Amino acid sequence: MGEDIKKKIAQAATELGKNYSRQGIFEVSVGQKLPKRSEIIDIVNEIRRVVFPGFFGDENTAYVELESFAGSTLAIIYEKLFKQIRVALLYDKKDENTDADIKNIEDKAEAYALDFIENLPRIQELILKDVEAELAGDPAAGSKEEVIFCYPGLFAIFVYRIAHELYKQGIPYIPRIMSEYAHGKTGIDINPGANIGEYFFIDHGTGIVIGETTTIGNNVKIYQGVTLGALSTMKGQQLSGVKRHPTIEDNVVIYANTTILGGETVVGENSVVAGNSFITASIPANTRVSMHKPELKLRERK
Amino acid sequence: MGEDIKKKIAQAATELGKNYSRQGIFEVSVGQKLPKRSEIIDIVNEIRRVVFPGFFGDENTAYVELESFAGSTLAIIYEKLFKQIRVALLYDKKDENTDADIKNIEDKAEAYALDFIENLPRIQELILKDVEAELAGDPAAGSKEEVIFCYPGLFAIFVYRIAHELYKQGIPYIPRIMSEYAHGKTGIDINPGANIGEYFFIDHGTGIVIGETTTIGNNVKIYQGVTLGALSTMKGQQLSGVKRHPTIEDNVVIYANTTILGGETVVGENSVVAGNSFITASIPANTRVSMHKPELKLRERK
Amino acid sequence: MGEDIKKKIAQAATELGKNYSRQGIFEVSVGQKLPKRSEIIDIVNEIRRVVFPGFFGDENTAYVELESFAGSTLAIIYEKLFKQIRVALLYDKKDENTDADIKNIEDKAEAYALDFIENLPRIQELILKDVEAELAGDPAAGSKEEVIFCYPGLFAIFVYRIAHELYKQGIPYIPRIMSEYAHGKTGIDINPGANIGEYFFIDHGTGIVIGETTTIGNNVKIYQGVTLGALSTMKGQQLSGVKRHPTIEDNVVIYANTTILGGETVVGENSVVAGNSFITASIPANTRVSMHKPELKLRERK
Repeated sequence: MGEDIKKKIAQAATELGKNYSRQGIFEVSVGQKLPKRSEIIDIVNEIRRVVFPGFFGDENTAYVELESFAGSTLAIIYEKLFKQIRVALLYDKKDENTDADIKNIEDKAEAYALDFIENLPRIQELILKDVEAELAGDPAAGSKEEVIFCYPGLFAIFVYRIAHELYKQGIPYIPRIMSEYAHGKTGIDINPGANIGEYFFIDHGTGIVIGETTTIGNNVKIYQGVTLGALSTMKGQQLSGVKRHPTIEDNVVIYANTTILGGETVVGENSVVAGNSFITASIPANTRVSMHKPELKLRERK
Repeated sequence: MGEDIKKKIAQAATELGKNYSRQGIFEVSVGQKLPKRSEIIDIVNEIRRVVFPGFFGDENTAYVELESFAGSTLAIIYEKLFKQIRVALLYDKKDENTDADIKNIEDKAEAYALDFIENLPRIQELILKDVEAELAGDPAAGSKEEVIFCYPGLFAIFVYRIAHELYKQGIPYIPRIMSEYAHGKTGIDINPGANIGEYFFIDHGTGIVIGETTTIGNNVKIYQGVTLGALSTMKGQQLSGVKRHPTIEDNVVIYANTTILGGETVVGENSVVAGNSFITASIPANTRVSMHKPELKLRERK
Repeated sequence: MGEDIKKKIAQAATELGKNYSRQGIFEVSVGQKLPKRSEIIDIVNEIRRVVFPGFFGDENTAYVELESFAGSTLAIIYEKLFKQIRVALLYDKKDENTDADIKNIEDKAEAYALDFIENLPRIQELILKDVEAELAGDPAAGSKEEVIFCYPGLFAIFVYRIAHELYKQGIPYIPRIMSEYAHGKTGIDINPGANIGEYFFIDHGTGIVIGETTTIGNNVKIYQGVTLGALSTMKGQQLSGVKRHPTIEDNVVIYANTTILGGETVVGENSVVAGNSFITASIPANTRVSMHKPELKLRERK
């Protein structure tokens, strides 16, 4: 490398250094680290292995005793999860760094991780109900195996159910890293804060957005491109924590590319919303909603 | 790890074990395995290497004789494909497990894999026509190389053409695993059951859904967010196999974010459908379709 | 492998060989290679490490001196980038292959790579402003760290700002490989040719398309599913280089799933465009735009 090149690289490094020092986020003290995205993705994958044994790992489930497979995999999940929760909590409480503070944070991390493990059988039951809903609702689905293996909707729901559990505990960073991992793989963006009932069904799914304060009942079906969003976000951070996304009651179906906005908007139970609708006010229960037959303009093409 | 933690992990494992045993899908007998997703993705990538030599592998095509490169790569593809088809067929026929059954299934797997290899040159010709269509149709495309390297539309079509071939043979799991791999990478969801003609063009592509019983003619162009879907899926599995997605004839262009629904909906040849349209009835040939100029409401913002 | 199988594989290889020889793109002379996608993705990731130290690498930034970390990482980026630019330029100029031509191309590659390094601190400043815009604009964002770690919108903008720099230099292949890498991971498709101002904000993002000749001012916010596209692409390659995508002025907000088309369409400064709009003509400054309240048809569901 020529001297001139070396010099210019050094100059650029100095400039970057100045940019770094203007940003608090790049000043990290010894012992402080950010959670590790790749470790968190590993945790999601280990949980998937134990929720669906035989589907995603190398183990041949014909030869292993499933309960002992579950035990050893749960121990791995516990360890990894405890470490990442600990890191996330320590990073978030930069100013609490006495030995007592750290001990306190470590105790919390242990309790959160263990709580998650204890809840996993219940979460698995929910996810297996989602599998049933996917199979029952999609004429193109060949079997539960196909749903588990291939369906992006199921994967997004699976990750949501895990991330939501950690979100409820108030753990920073990790739930969102998980949900954005699923978003990246599926195009389905479910904020971990949303509350979603049993037998949730998503088909195709690309472009779906379900906001942080959305509530969804049991047995709801949602298709690609559906947004359950906020009416306006002009106030930015001032809206943090405010209910700004819709409520969808039991047994509702929302077809493709429909947008439903607003924290006071409720779609009543058993209603069916046609594709391409734009809804900013509540819909009563037991209603079929569609846009007035869209007038098309047809001209001969010469 | 503390005794308390160990005990709680063991309890959770027992609970998971109970959940497993309530589900037939987790009971696998010796010799039965599910197909392996990572192997199937490998097969897609090997096929891509042989269809586009020099583009995706490490081989320097200036130094290798291309026909012999093709021969050795095809042998790898045959072996891998045969194994996965065998596994998929055996898994699907859990009850046919006499030696004669297994021999019969293995013969079928061999025949299917070989049939695929024999058809690959024909499939490659189709894909090279799709490359031409992408280059001709997109003003931003710089060259065929850029299309092959970068265009998600081309990747989705490539995987569709392969998966469709295996779908026609009636192979379970594998076609859908392939198409969902492409869906995950591109946001383009083409069911392997769809019938698509020559010179197919997709631009941008995110959010496109092409349902299982869709028929598309030659020389058709489709943009991002287009759904070719079913009118209603309320009957779920009862609709399996029924024609429920539209027919798009030759030389049709469908611009971004348009939704076309229904098994009896036909868009006639040479027609052009404007963006954002919602269509649930047939369109004659040689027609330009658009929504009536959408009335916009403009207010001054103070 | 049976003789019959070997023979059929050999036949298929011969057929593939014939297809190859009909395509100029598979004829590569010694010394010519295509750029390597995996190397280009590596370059993007190395740049991300140096722009956000401590976030994506294994280094513990509490123990390293950040300026020297920047220096050594920049040296790696320079080397990798120089090599890929060299390969891309050589491939593109297949006919310029005298020693003088090659020397000339190598000098250019060196100059382009060095120019990029010199500009990186300025690009980093832009990206850090985008981080601020993301945090300020999204009520669900918890911190700058969460934005940098998780937000697909920020990732897409980051890759755009890098790819745009290389696009401006006229480097073939590499900018588009980068932007399609981001598109694949996020569903956000920003052509590297677009011109985008400071403090750009994208939320959720799946399905966004920003065309090659789009101009976007400062402080603009765009939500999922927004297309800034061309009115018609029927003329294909004839439109190459023509301004065919809209202009969005400063402080504009465009809500979800809106489509804005045409090279002469200008959305004036401070305007807010509601979700689901379809716009093909200019909008004055300081305007709130929405579709006329879409009439919904409600029927009781029995």
